[in-house]
Order: sequence, then structure tokens, then C-alpha cells
Amino acid sequence: MDFKFRYTGAVDRARNGFARQGMMETLKAQMEVLKPGFCEITARIRPEVSQQNGFAHAGLAFAIGDSAAGFAAQSLMTEGMDVLTTEMKIHLMAPAQGNSLVARGSVLKSGRTLTVAEAKVYAQSGDTEILVAVLLGTMMAVKDTGQ
Amino acid sequence: MDFKFRYTGAVDRARNGFARQGMMETLKAQMEVLKPGFCEITARIRPEVSQQNGFAHAGLAFAIGDSAAGFAAQSLMTEGMDVLTTEMKIHLMAPAQGNSLVARGSVLKSGRTLTVAEAKVYAQSGDTEILVAVLLGTMMAVKDTGQ
Amino acid sequence: MDFKFRYTGAVDRARNGFARQGMMETLKAQMEVLKPGFCEITARIRPEVSQQNGFAHAGLAFAIGDSAAGFAAQSLMTEGMDVLTTEMKIHLMAPAQGNSLVARGSVLKSGRTLTVAEAKVYAQSGDTEILVAVLLGTMMAVKDTGQ
Amino acid sequence: MDFKFRYTGAVDRARNGFARQGMMETLKAQMEVLKPGFCEITARIRPEVSQQNGFAHAGLAFAIGDSAAGFAAQSLMTEGMDVLTTEMKIHLMAPAQGNSLVARGSVLKSGRTLTVAEAKVYAQSGDTEILVAVLLGTMMAVKDTGQ
Repeated sequence: MDFKFRYTGAVDRARNGFARQGMMETLKAQMEVLKPGFCEITARIRPEVSQQNGFAHAGLAFAIGDSAAGFAAQSLMTEGMDVLTTEMKIHLMAPAQGNSLVARGSVLKSGRTLTVAEAKVYAQSGDTEILVAVLLGTMMAVKDTGQ
Repeated sequence: MDFKFRYTGAVDRARNGFARQGMMETLKAQMEVLKPGFCEITARIRPEVSQQNGFAHAGLAFAIGDSAAGFAAQSLMTEGMDVLTTEMKIHLMAPAQGNSLVARGSVLKSGRTLTVAEAKVYAQSGDTEILVAVLLGTMMAVKDTGQ
Repeated sequence: MDFKFRYTGAVDRARNGFARQGMMETLKAQMEVLKPGFCEITARIRPEVSQQNGFAHAGLAFAIGDSAAGFAAQSLMTEGMDVLTTEMKIHLMAPAQGNSLVARGSVLKSGRTLTVAEAKVYAQSGDTEILVAVLLGTMMAVKDTGQ
Repeated sequence: MDFKFRYTGAVDRARNGFARQGMMETLKAQMEVLKPGFCEITARIRPEVSQQNGFAHAGLAFAIGDSAAGFAAQSLMTEGMDVLTTEMKIHLMAPAQGNSLVARGSVLKSGRTLTVAEAKVYAQSGDTEILVAVLLGTMMAVKDTGQ
């Protein structure tokens, strides 16, 4: 698919939105890439985000996968629009072990009200990437309330 | 449904598993109730777990909803078994605003390998509870590796 | 939850919509009940709707479960509105064997644009009902095009 | 991904399984392709499988998408193994109008017990294909009971 930004401030809007999410700070997540219909977010695997076996908690893969899909969706929306996840499914396919997780979100179908987006989450160790989770869900465009 | 623990140490197993999850500590989540096929987990809504509008991040509702469903599922498993989420869907139905979130997980179908479980997540403010999210997913029983 | 019809013709609208679905005729499905926020649809388990082991095909449970959820959602919409499923998840929990399947759809959250609805599908044999599938998904209100 | 059949009779097993599904005959569906980790199934859009607006019913996209994902999953299983869908999500992204639907199922992750598979469903009119649905779900390997 061949998407374009519909608003020149789309990257700034995403950066600002990301910075306002306390959860992303708590998870030490960073937005690495924002392109039309695509977003990449990373987070280190630390004890603070572990589950009972020392791997990253499903909540970490979900949080950055959902955010990557959401910012990918918002990147195609017009000025003044914010994005809400209405529903999201995640498959956890392998233990999330390694140095960090990287989530790559992309848009499958961009509509006026609803967007279908997916994200793939990989565990990185050195040069190796293993697919640990896949997300698929629905985003809704809503008027940005500024706060 | 009328479920029973199959292992006298089921409550201790859940408490220990919960305590080993660094993510639950990071989110300041607490396991309030564990009964056969049921688990309740709460977390305060704090700036550290917010999204861009100041509501609780979808990742918080997911993390405690998924954990509540998971411990509900594990509560019906025999000794030595741990639980993994293989997939989970979440619907976000209302803004997660208020003092705290409470997730109530329960088992719909308990199989030898797979369990289907759901969770409902409510935002609490004073005496009021509003349903903000519903989760439905699959849990798999795996041998507990002790660490 | 305590729902009410918002349109006096809601039952007729549903009966007409159901009658226009060639698929429901092909599956010999029948709408048994329509109440505010609730719909029940049944279908006999016949060789024509079987999978490879002689049980009802997942496609049958999906088709009547999705329709039951959809008509439950539409029952709460104002005059002139039709309903579309935007996404739906189904869990298949037991073999669909017996005389017939009954799907009971109900609304969890009714919004202006989006409705979250679920359906439970039971296999009936004589007086016995076994839960064979659970569905959870999103419905969207759209202007009825009359055809 | 680079998958291989683990059983020389994999194609015959799939053809036989497909032929035993009464539902596929009822929907006039045909298995066009079976390769390791991939399956393609088509069905004509006929009045007998329509919804209320004359488009193909969501149940048709689900039935052939689920079957395509399922046979893709089974293609990587050893001799004597059959496949069951444990859960499946479908997104309906555009009206299913045209001459026929084609579902292409592929395996994302093949495990000993569980397989994660997806399917994309396109509406075909002449030389044009439009993506109308995406499915993502879980398949379980079970001993084939021969009937």
C-alpha cells in the first residue's frame, strides 16, 4: 500500500501525543520511526516489565504494539484528529526474551472513521530478531481535545 | 459454572506467581481475590500509566485484565502447572477515568491443554463502577519451570 | 442491562432484513426471538453444513452467532439504520454435535456509531444444551440503503 | 517463511478432508492451491450466500477464510493429524461484491500443538481484486479420527 500524510504536522502530532503518554515513559518506550501508515516503537526488556519467568510481560508487547498500530493509524488522519483503539487482538507466539522489544505497526485499511491496523513485535538480541507477537485491531478517529 | 481447585496450594501458587511479575509491581497492581475459576486484580489510575488524554492507558487495562484471566485459568490447573496467554482480545468501551481500575477474570471453559477465559475491567470512582473494557482469550497450561 | 427499542418498527425491520439474507435460507436458519438488545437464531445440524468429522462446520456457528449479535445490535438503533459487522472473534469450545445450534446474541455496549455485542452458541440434543462457541465483536450503524 | 510438508500424503489428506466438508459443497467452494503452509479456496458470490444488501454474507468470507487458514496449518502437520480451529478473528473491511471470493491462508507460526495462521479474502471482478476481509486465529493439531 502506498500511503501519504494528509497533514504536514503529522510527525509533530505523533511525537507530542507520544510524549504525553505517561505509560510510554514508565515502560521506557521510544518512538523510533513514523512514516505514512507506519510506526516503530521500542522498549528495553527490564525486570520492571517482566512476568513470572523473567521474560517481558505480555502487557509490554501489547502496550508498544497497540501504540505502534495506533500512531500508524493516526499518521493518515487529517489535522485535529486523535486516535482511539476500539479493540485489539494479540497473539503471543514465543517467549519475549532478549535485550529489547521492537513493535512495527502498519495500516491495512484506512477509512474515514475506522482504521484496521496490525503490529508485529520482535525480540532483539544482538543482530537477531525473533517474532514474538502479532496484533490486529481497530482504531477510531476522534476529535483531538487538546488535552 | 461450578469450579473447584485441583491443588491445595493453588492460592499460594498464584500469590507467588503474581509477586514474581515485575510488571505488576511497576503498575502498582494488587491481586485482591483468587477463587476457583476467578481472580480480581486492581490498580490505581496514576499519571505514570496514562495515555495522551490523562485516562489510563489501554496497556494498563490489558495488563491487569490479561493477568486476571490468566490467574483465573491457572487456579483450575493441577500442581506444577503454569499458565501462558496464547492470544487475547480486548475491547475498550469507555474512557478509563477515575480512581482505579478493577479487573475480574473468569473461566468460560477449562480444558486439559487450553482454557478460554474472559475478564471485565471497571473504572471505579467512589461507589461507582463503569465497564471500560472486556477481554476474551486463550490460556495454555505449561509445566512450571520454577523460575 | 436494560435496553429499549428506539423505533416502533424495530422487530419488522429485523424480520425483513433476516428474510433478505440468502445465506440464512441456505443454512435453514430461523430468527426465533428479537427483544431490545437480544436476538436468538437457530439452525438444524445437517450434512449440508458439516465439517470433515460430521459435526457442524465452524462457519455455521459463526454465521448464526454473527447474525444474532448483529440483529441484537440493530435492535437498539434508530429508524433507517442498518448494521454491519466490522470485526468478530469466535472461540470454538466443543464439537458442534446434536440436533441443532442456537445462537443468542446480546449487546454489551451500545454507542452511536459502534456497538459491542457478544453471542453464545449452544448445541441442542433433546433437553440438553452444550456451549460450543462464544463470539465477541463490533457492529457499526450505517444508513439503510433499502436494498 | 520457508515451510516444507512433513508427510508425503499432505495434499491428498487436504483434498480428502475438504471433500468431506458438506459445508464447502453447500457454499460451492473449491480448494485451488495447497502448498506447504499455504492454501487457497474460492467461492462464487451467489444469491444463496448473500446478506441483506446482496453482497456476500460475512459467513461466506469466514467459512472459506477459516478453511484456508486451517488447511494451511494442517499442511505442516505430521501423518495422522487433523486440524481444529480453536479461535478466529475476522475483520470485514469492504463490501464483498463481485464475481467470487478468494481466500488465501498462510501460517505465521507452526508449533507442535498450536499454529497461528492468517487468511486474506479478496473479492474478484474480472481482473480486479479488492481486499474485503482479514482473518487471524489459532489452530490445534488433533489425532485424525478417520471419520
